[in-house]
Amino acid sequence: MKIELNRQSDQSLINQISSIIAEKIRSGDLIGGSKLPSLRKFSLENQVSFMTVNKAYQLLEKNGYINLKHGKGAFVKRKETNKNMNSGTGNYDWQLNIPDYIQRSQYILNLKPVNSFNFTSAVINPKLLPTLYITKEINQILQNDPQIVSRYSSVQGDEEVRQVVADYLKHYCQLKPKSSEIIITNGVQQGIDIVARTFIGPGDIVITEAPTYTAALDVFRNRGATIISIPVDENGMKTDKLASLCLTKKPKLVYTIPTFQNPTGTVLSKRRREDLLELAKSNGFIIVEDDSWNEIYFDGTLPPPTIKSLDTDGHVIYLKGFSKTLAPGCKVGAIVSNGTIKKRLLTSKSCADLGSPLLTQKALVPFLNSNRMRTHLEKLRIALEIRRNRTISLLENHAPEKVTWLIPKGGLNIWITFPTDKNTEELLSKARYAEEISFLTSSACYPNEAPCNHIRISYSQIDDQMLDQGIIKLCKVMHEFLSDK
Amino acid sequence: MKIELNRQSDQSLINQISSIIAEKIRSGDLIGGSKLPSLRKFSLENQVSFMTVNKAYQLLEKNGYINLKHGKGAFVKRKETNKNMNSGTGNYDWQLNIPDYIQRSQYILNLKPVNSFNFTSAVINPKLLPTLYITKEINQILQNDPQIVSRYSSVQGDEEVRQVVADYLKHYCQLKPKSSEIIITNGVQQGIDIVARTFIGPGDIVITEAPTYTAALDVFRNRGATIISIPVDENGMKTDKLASLCLTKKPKLVYTIPTFQNPTGTVLSKRRREDLLELAKSNGFIIVEDDSWNEIYFDGTLPPPTIKSLDTDGHVIYLKGFSKTLAPGCKVGAIVSNGTIKKRLLTSKSCADLGSPLLTQKALVPFLNSNRMRTHLEKLRIALEIRRNRTISLLENHAPEKVTWLIPKGGLNIWITFPTDKNTEELLSKARYAEEISFLTSSACYPNEAPCNHIRISYSQIDDQMLDQGIIKLCKVMHEFLSDK
Repeated sequence: MKIELNRQSDQSLINQISSIIAEKIRSGDLIGGSKLPSLRKFSLENQVSFMTVNKAYQLLEKNGYINLKHGKGAFVKRKETNKNMNSGTGNYDWQLNIPDYIQRSQYILNLKPVNSFNFTSAVINPKLLPTLYITKEINQILQNDPQIVSRYSSVQGDEEVRQVVADYLKHYCQLKPKSSEIIITNGVQQGIDIVARTFIGPGDIVITEAPTYTAALDVFRNRGATIISIPVDENGMKTDKLASLCLTKKPKLVYTIPTFQNPTGTVLSKRRREDLLELAKSNGFIIVEDDSWNEIYFDGTLPPPTIKSLDTDGHVIYLKGFSKTLAPGCKVGAIVSNGTIKKRLLTSKSCADLGSPLLTQKALVPFLNSNRMRTHLEKLRIALEIRRNRTISLLENHAPEKVTWLIPKGGLNIWITFPTDKNTEELLSKARYAEEISFLTSSACYPNEAPCNHIRISYSQIDDQMLDQGIIKLCKVMHEFLSDK
Repeated sequence: MKIELNRQSDQSLINQISSIIAEKIRSGDLIGGSKLPSLRKFSLENQVSFMTVNKAYQLLEKNGYINLKHGKGAFVKRKETNKNMNSGTGNYDWQLNIPDYIQRSQYILNLKPVNSFNFTSAVINPKLLPTLYITKEINQILQNDPQIVSRYSSVQGDEEVRQVVADYLKHYCQLKPKSSEIIITNGVQQGIDIVARTFIGPGDIVITEAPTYTAALDVFRNRGATIISIPVDENGMKTDKLASLCLTKKPKLVYTIPTFQNPTGTVLSKRRREDLLELAKSNGFIIVEDDSWNEIYFDGTLPPPTIKSLDTDGHVIYLKGFSKTLAPGCKVGAIVSNGTIKKRLLTSKSCADLGSPLLTQKALVPFLNSNRMRTHLEKLRIALEIRRNRTISLLENHAPEKVTWLIPKGGLNIWITFPTDKNTEELLSKARYAEEISFLTSSACYPNEAPCNHIRISYSQIDDQMLDQGIIKLCKVMHEFLSDK
C-alpha cells in the first residue's frame, strides 16, 4: 500500500497515514475483514519508520477503524465498526463489505478547483462561447418542432445531427466520414468509456502517452487493463519506443491525443502519425484518437492531418467533442469508426444508455451548419492565443529561473516543469491556501510511476481580468516553494 | 451453438442456418479462426438432420465465410475472408479478430418496430405528453439564464435539479431522499448500467424476475454476471423461492421492477416487499428497485409503498426516470442511494461521462415544480386506463379461446400467454409481414431458458385511432397462428 505523504506538511506523518487509511475504509476502498500491510512492509514501501506506522495503526484502532490482533496483524473492522463513520440516520456499515469494481484515482479531479484563480479546469470561459446565438437557435428549433422534447433519439444518434457532424468533420478536421459511421455520445468521456467497455478487459494491454489525460486512465484502469505508457517529447508520443515495445508485448489499443496533447500541449508530427498507423497495421491494434482541440491552433499554423484521415482500413477510432468549443451544457460528442468496430461500439452505447438525449443533439444543428461556426472558431483561436501569449510572457518575467515550460502551439494548457526533487503537490497545497490558486499536478497524469515535478495550468477558464494577477501570484508561490528546504 | 430456427418459414433450414451463422461472422460474434460446432453436435442441439447442417456449412464455405478442413472441422476464415462482407471502401477484415466484451442479446430490440401498429415500444404516445408547456418553459429558462448552455453540470447532477427531484419523489413516490442522495443519470438505463459497472463482475450472482426487462439482462450479462431468475406470479416475484435460493447461493444484487412489473404488469405485494428487504438484510445483498411506472396506477388504486421507502439501512438502490412520463427527448433519470454505495456509484458516473448535460436537466425543473405535474399524471392515468380497458375488451371479444392474459393494474403493458407448444417468434413473423404489427416476444425476457409462448403488447405508443384496428388484426393473426399445425 503505497500512499502519498507530504513531508513538508504541518500534520505529523502518523496523522497523515492514519487519516489516509481511515478515508480508504470509509470510502469502501478497504473492506471489512481485509488485512492491512505488516508494519515492516508498510514502513519499507513508504519510507517511514516502523514506530511511525505502529503509532498510526494504534490511532486507527483507537478511532474504531481497525482491530490489532497480536501476532496476526491489523484488520479492517467488519459490520460492528464505529457508527460515527456514517452520515445520515441509517446504519450503512454493512455496505463496507460489498466489493466493487471501481478505481478511485480521479479523486484528484474531484477536489473542487478554487473559485478565485482556477487554472485546473481545461474548459473555455463561457464569455468566449456563442451562448446567445445558441439559446436563440434552441428557441427557434422548439418553435418549429416542439416534438423534439417528446421523442427519443435513436441509439446511434439523430440522423440529421450525424449528417451535420459529418459535414463539420469534413470542413474542420480533414475527415470524410459517412453519417452512418458516426455515433453520438455524451461528450468525449463517454466515447472513451464506450471504447474501453467494448474492447478492454482484464490484462489487455493499453498504451497511453506519458503524461496523459487523467480521466482516460481511470476508464482503462476500471476495465482491468494493463496500462503501459510511452513518453512524449516535443513531437508527441515517441513512436520508436512503441515499436520496440511491440517486439515483446501485444498492445490491444493505443490511446493518443495527437494534437495539442493533454497535458503537454505537444503535437505528434506527421511522420510519427504515419509510423503509428503502420504499427497498428502490423500489430493489429486499435488507435483511439482523442481529437478534442484540433481546431484551436495558434500562430496561423494548421496541425498535421488527423490520424483518422490517413486511415484506410478502420484502425482508428476517432473521438470529437463539441462541449468545450461550443456548448458545455449540451455535452455532445461523437465517435467515428468503421466496420464491425462501429457495430460493436453501437451495441455498447445501447447498453450504456440507449442513446443520448435528442434535445441537446438538435440544439447544435443550426450553429454547426452555419458560417458562424467558422467565425466563432477564428475568434476562439485569437482569444486563446492572446491568453497563451500573456501567460508565457508573465512566466518569463516572474517565474523562478529553475522553472521551465513548453510553449503550446494550440489548445488550452501549459505544461510546467520544476526540478526533479520537487513535489508539486506541495506547491498546490501552498497555492490553494495562501492565494486561492489551483491547477493540475503531474501525479494524476501518469498510469504507473508518476514524476511529481510538473504541473498543468489551463489559461482558458479564468476570467480575463484575473489572468495576470493569478499568474503573478502563482509565480510568487513558486519562488517560496523552490526556496523551501 | 443453439440458434432460433423457424420451421414454418418459406426459407429452407439450410438457408436459415447459413445466414444466421454468416451474420454472427459479419458482426464479429464469431471471430476469425474459431471452430464451428461439429456437424453431429450442431444437429443434436438444434434438432435438424446431419445432412442439413452439412449442406449449410458447405454453403458458408462457398460464400467465403468458413473453411472446411477434412477431418478437422469447420473454421471461421481469418483476414483473407471475402471482401464483400464489408461495406465501405476500406478492408476492415482484420477487425474480425479483435475479441470484445459485449453480449448481443439486445438484437431483438434493435429490430425496428413497424410503423403501422407498433405494440413493441413501451413508451407513451407524444400526444399524451405536456410538450408545449415544456418547450415554453425551456424558452423561459434560456431567457433567464442563457449560461445554462455554457456550463457543465456537476458529475452528480445540478443541485437545483436534485432538490426538485427529491421533492417529486416525496410527493409522488412516498420517499424522503435528501438531494445529496440523488445522482442524475441519462435515463433509467444508465442507472442500471452504473449500478452494474460498480458492483457486478464475473461470476457475481444477480437475481432478476422471470420474465424481466430485456435491456437490464444485457447490462448484467455484459458484466459477466451469473444471472438466476425467480418466477413472478400475480403478486410479483416469488420471494419464498428467493429465500430457498439464498440457502445455497449468495446473491450480490437483486434487480426488481416491483410495481407494474415489466413485462407482466404484476405488482409485488407489500408483504413480499418486506420479505425481500428482510432477505437483503440477512444475506447482505443490494436491491435495485426499478420504479419506472409507479405513478401510472389504474382504478384509483395506489400501489404498495416503494421498497426504498421501507429501507432504513441503505439496502435499496432506487431508480426513477422522467423520460417516459414527461420528456423522452430530455432523458433524465435519477438514482437514489445512501452511504458508501452512493459514493461509489458517483465515482462510476464520473468515469462513464463526467455528468449528464445541464440543459436537459434544467429543462424539467419548472414542470416538476408546478401543480401541472399532478394534473398531468392524473390525465395520463385516465388516458392509459382507457387504453388498457379497450385493449382488454377487444382481446375478450376477438382473441382465440386458448389465449390468456393478465390484466395490469397500471403501467403500459399486457402480458399474453399462448399454449406452451407454440413459439411466438412465428406469430411475430406472421404479424409483421401480413399486417405490419409488431410486439415483444417472450424469448427476449428471460435470462436463461426462455419459454417462447408469451408476448408483451404495449398499448401506450400507438396512435389512439389505430389501437382498435391493430388489436383486431392481431387477434386475426393469433387465430391463424393457433390453427397452424
